[in-house]
Amino acid sequence: MPRRKADRVAALPPRSVIGILGSGQLGRMLAQAASRIGFRTHIYAADSGPAFDVTGAHSVGGYDNLVRLDEFARAVDVVTYEFENVPVDAARHLITRVPVHPGPKALEVAQDRIAEKAFISDLGISVAPFAAIRTRDELGAARAALASWGTPGILKTARLGYDGKGQATVHALEEVDSAWRQLGEVPCVLEQRIAFAFEISVLVVRGQDGEMIFYDIPRNTHADGILRRSAVPSGVPAAFEERARTMAGRVADALSYVGVLAVEMFWLGPDAAQPLLVNEIAPRVHNSGHWTMDACAADQFENHIRAIAAWPLAPTTRHSEAEMVNLIGPEADAWLTLAAGPNACLHLYGKREARPGRKMGHVNYLKPGAGG
Amino acid sequence: MPRRKADRVAALPPRSVIGILGSGQLGRMLAQAASRIGFRTHIYAADSGPAFDVTGAHSVGGYDNLVRLDEFARAVDVVTYEFENVPVDAARHLITRVPVHPGPKALEVAQDRIAEKAFISDLGISVAPFAAIRTRDELGAARAALASWGTPGILKTARLGYDGKGQATVHALEEVDSAWRQLGEVPCVLEQRIAFAFEISVLVVRGQDGEMIFYDIPRNTHADGILRRSAVPSGVPAAFEERARTMAGRVADALSYVGVLAVEMFWLGPDAAQPLLVNEIAPRVHNSGHWTMDACAADQFENHIRAIAAWPLAPTTRHSEAEMVNLIGPEADAWLTLAAGPNACLHLYGKREARPGRKMGHVNYLKPGAGG
Repeated sequence: MPRRKADRVAALPPRSVIGILGSGQLGRMLAQAASRIGFRTHIYAADSGPAFDVTGAHSVGGYDNLVRLDEFARAVDVVTYEFENVPVDAARHLITRVPVHPGPKALEVAQDRIAEKAFISDLGISVAPFAAIRTRDELGAARAALASWGTPGILKTARLGYDGKGQATVHALEEVDSAWRQLGEVPCVLEQRIAFAFEISVLVVRGQDGEMIFYDIPRNTHADGILRRSAVPSGVPAAFEERARTMAGRVADALSYVGVLAVEMFWLGPDAAQPLLVNEIAPRVHNSGHWTMDACAADQFENHIRAIAAWPLAPTTRHSEAEMVNLIGPEADAWLTLAAGPNACLHLYGKREARPGRKMGHVNYLKPGAGG
Repeated sequence: MPRRKADRVAALPPRSVIGILGSGQLGRMLAQAASRIGFRTHIYAADSGPAFDVTGAHSVGGYDNLVRLDEFARAVDVVTYEFENVPVDAARHLITRVPVHPGPKALEVAQDRIAEKAFISDLGISVAPFAAIRTRDELGAARAALASWGTPGILKTARLGYDGKGQATVHALEEVDSAWRQLGEVPCVLEQRIAFAFEISVLVVRGQDGEMIFYDIPRNTHADGILRRSAVPSGVPAAFEERARTMAGRVADALSYVGVLAVEMFWLGPDAAQPLLVNEIAPRVHNSGHWTMDACAADQFENHIRAIAAWPLAPTTRHSEAEMVNLIGPEADAWLTLAAGPNACLHLYGKREARPGRKMGHVNYLKPGAGG
């Protein structure tokens, strides 16, 4: 049942404990933001990670360990998470003990590409044409759909894909079956490959009273399926950025969402039949919003914490043009050179090993004086 | 022996451990800044404090506990401190085990107002006229000095004064003796009370290679001996700000200083015989530099950590006009209202009890677009 405005939730006082599921860099940056405004933090994760270094309290436990989860719930005042693959059952269990934001509905939708695309389409929002392949029986219909759109298509596992993992390009109709076998015959979606100009993402913050604010929209560049750069301003004409915000806001409202929601979209250009298509949503703070750490008075992490703590949201005003560049794998080995870059704000996540494809940090390049 | 430029110190790599003496808000903000650029932190303090909430490792021990200090030294790669009253013996002990920045010389000078004023005067830098009262024997000379300056004067304990503690105003010559008794007959300095226009502070960052950079100079306002506000720009004419930086730089050089040094000065106006007088120095990050957290790409805490880690220093460029307002004692109880303030960046230190006079947090008010 959606909360009525009258049921105003009391803001959590300073020194309350923010519980965070996940010990990666997003959990780390959430904890850092929480501590800036006087909260304590407690990280819960299956494994040690960089977030453990910035918090006074952490628990190591599986997401199915109800005893450990209960201990965690007793130690915190609210729970949030840094990644969308938190098992929904864990969130559903925790919510019987302590508020969990964003709620399990957002997890359910975001964890399954089939559910996600259905949910978004049902809101009257455009997504790339797709066909679900849950079982072998649906292969034929998917091939027929691809024939109608034209090749190539992209086959994506419905669950647990990220940073380009769990995806295969399908260049010809007869490749659909083999690609599905290759991905393990798990439920998938086959999508039309969209000839978009570039990707953008809308970062919306929604409070417990339904208030919504938006950060400026970044233009995102990927390589090998991994985000490389996010730049603001995006270059999308203002009227279409406004349309993008409206689309993202509709998703956030429909989920009764609390916190930062990232809605990735393809920008096809002003003359396309559908200039903007939603690609996917992430019910969490997002890599494409890391530029907010240095270009805004309050960054995405602080506003996420404010939202889940029922605080007033902080303005998303941007004071500089900014470009965020991820440091992936051994790129972070150049830390000494990067640290000397002019107008470069360096962020390192304190990870032990610079494995290929691993996000080790990012740099925010600012153009001072070039405000929003 | 001063380090020659040839002995270039290697920069500490990410994941190195920054040891911080002191668990208060300055230690907390140092730890937060260190973690942003990929360092781990370890806090050492006699008592639990707000810095413990943002670090993965802490030790509780006295500053005379050599066993605990040795354990701490083994766990860290460099040591710094958040307050100038770290016992010099503790710093001298640690430095036999691990680099300590700023070095013990800065502590020695800053811990004793008599040594401090002598050190600064010996550099040819103006301070307020003063007379040392180490023992009863020096009371007569101090009275005579005050007679020559004219009343009122201020009597300050040579050691362990802060936030207006350990001070007494002397309105008449015959009050000198009673004020000294009142302060416990400990070594003191009697100073001429200067009719200054306002106080400023120079925040200089000095690297291990002797490079120096300066933040913009704030104008400081106190009440009841406690800093209330620091605002940039200061309003002091540029030529005099340049002179102030030169004075502060000379102090930093003379101390072979590494890190952020705050040099508080009185501004008497352009027509005064001595327009700028050094009041005192603080060998650490400083409350009057907290506005850098939101108005600069790299704040004083990050640059302090960069300096002690032998990293290149980051630009001190300011992108907005800013005013920092301290939240003292129960003022922080208004956190919910403060959190809703426009252009207000709220920082809370996570302290348990809002005792009168205790610094609980601060707000940085920004004027976007009004850069330096």
